[in-house]
Amino acid sequence: MLIQEDCSKAMLSIKDALEAVDGRWKLLILYSLCSGPKRFKEISREVDGITDKTLSKELKNLQANKLVNREVHDTFPPTVEYTMTAHGMSLRKVLYELWSWGLSHRQEVIGK
Amino acid sequence: MLIQEDCSKAMLSIKDALEAVDGRWKLLILYSLCSGPKRFKEISREVDGITDKTLSKELKNLQANKLVNREVHDTFPPTVEYTMTAHGMSLRKVLYELWSWGLSHRQEVIGK
Repeated sequence: MLIQEDCSKAMLSIKDALEAVDGRWKLLILYSLCSGPKRFKEISREVDGITDKTLSKELKNLQANKLVNREVHDTFPPTVEYTMTAHGMSLRKVLYELWSWGLSHRQEVIGK
Repeated sequence: MLIQEDCSKAMLSIKDALEAVDGRWKLLILYSLCSGPKRFKEISREVDGITDKTLSKELKNLQANKLVNREVHDTFPPTVEYTMTAHGMSLRKVLYELWSWGLSHRQEVIGK
């Protein structure tokens, strides 16, 4: 169980995770890719409020962290799709717990 | 299952959760309080790298979000302890999943 782990080691793991998915957008982008490969504009539509510049930056960072793949298809004109890597997929439990906690948090604090 | 939920509603819940625990410190402070009530200086020691000013600000924000309680004990001089609320405790699954994912992320990307 979590709290029986050596505290500083566990802190380090949580820090690692937070650094990889920090900010308000990365987890939302990953959630958008949970349902399958998407083009840039599709992600941009689903992640409400994100600018193209920020989405572009965040996608690059997610690629660097091996969470997202960028695939160029040899069509005319070439098309680009973003997919979750297996490592990105392993974040689904985190997303699920955040989603589930976000629901209860809205009831508890925001009250609607 | 998460991906079968209505997408924009699920995004909203994840957004709510991310807003409540945003930044690099809040989840680490909460993790530090998982093991029991702590005084300011004890949290400050456990959460490596945080300044007193930031810790103070984050604790106030966590109180506003009903995740942490501040208890003043009638000793001489008065002592102050911080505890997790029941609502804060409900974040433990999120912490557990982040911890567990952080471990695999370190192996996958950082490679040590």
